[in-house]
Amino acid sequence: MIIQKKLNIKSKKKFEIIDISDEIKKIIKDSKINRGIVNIFSKHSTSAIVINENESGLLKDIEITLSKLVIENNDYYHDRIDNNGGSHLKAILLSPSETIPIYNCKLNLGTWQSIFFIEFDGPRNRIVDVTAIGD
Amino acid sequence: MIIQKKLNIKSKKKFEIIDISDEIKKIIKDSKINRGIVNIFSKHSTSAIVINENESGLLKDIEITLSKLVIENNDYYHDRIDNNGGSHLKAILLSPSETIPIYNCKLNLGTWQSIFFIEFDGPRNRIVDVTAIGD
Amino acid sequence: MIIQKKLNIKSKKKFEIIDISDEIKKIIKDSKINRGIVNIFSKHSTSAIVINENESGLLKDIEITLSKLVIENNDYYHDRIDNNGGSHLKAILLSPSETIPIYNCKLNLGTWQSIFFIEFDGPRNRIVDVTAIGD
Repeated sequence: MIIQKKLNIKSKKKFEIIDISDEIKKIIKDSKINRGIVNIFSKHSTSAIVINENESGLLKDIEITLSKLVIENNDYYHDRIDNNGGSHLKAILLSPSETIPIYNCKLNLGTWQSIFFIEFDGPRNRIVDVTAIGD
Repeated sequence: MIIQKKLNIKSKKKFEIIDISDEIKKIIKDSKINRGIVNIFSKHSTSAIVINENESGLLKDIEITLSKLVIENNDYYHDRIDNNGGSHLKAILLSPSETIPIYNCKLNLGTWQSIFFIEFDGPRNRIVDVTAIGD
Repeated sequence: MIIQKKLNIKSKKKFEIIDISDEIKKIIKDSKINRGIVNIFSKHSTSAIVINENESGLLKDIEITLSKLVIENNDYYHDRIDNNGGSHLKAILLSPSETIPIYNCKLNLGTWQSIFFIEFDGPRNRIVDVTAIGD
């Protein structure tokens, strides 16, 4: 069985972490898939999909830590044609997708795991594709 | 055909790299799946799944390099509620899962590839979920 | 339906970013899979699969940024047995695979997304395994 859905996401800031766990859980519940996997894929090269704990302090730490690893406005070659080189480089470090197991008709996240869409170059309208495969 | 198994992992130190290749290879061999993929997913937000070479010097380099990229005890906001912000941030850089092809009833790793569970906040009891899909 | 193909890649330099989008798109088109996912997996521990924009300035930024995050010839423990510790560490940060949705018989990349094989320790002959699953 294969289910495909699109999430439409509206980011409101340059950098934003948006929890999409509830939307993904609903898709899996409605899909009636018992066992399998779900792939969550962002179609944009200045965003990422990340799984970790939704704790407000940690979300700030993520922003600060990424800003130290990839300095913004660092005279990137890409900035000559589009002023968002730092956003692309952060997206590359974190990658555009995650694949998660489905067990007993449920998204099999751990207690402290949430799924985040991370916006590095907002505000923008974004699409995340969700593909679940299973029995 | 879908096979789901759980690995129970007992880490013994704060930071530890544990090779789980043999366990995954056995699951694939026992599954009788000929062609497909296997998703290996850690249910914890202070751990990661990584594929690389199991060479003792390199394992030390991984620990040292990650400690430079994400400094421990760096006065993280998350440390105010749970003193492991650095462990979360390392886990985010490496991500909680990998998906690997199955060819001819075997896990299709390269000669120098092993699968590691990396513990960033041990010692703890951990669960890794293994989902194989194929024919 | 499951399709498995191998890409043979010949890198020509120590560091090289090779766009493999056209090869993957052709495999998906020929497969006749309508809906599903495709896993792209590099069998080498000094290379990575990355999805981002194919813009020449950005490709230079990727090389420079990774070289700052992981310094080459940094007296790594792994260099004592094989002089490519930095190459392994960069590969670990970026990971050896990506999994991408297939929609309407097509690889469902965004407008600005390409698939790259990144070589960190060339020149070498490399193999990338492509596994598509769907209906």
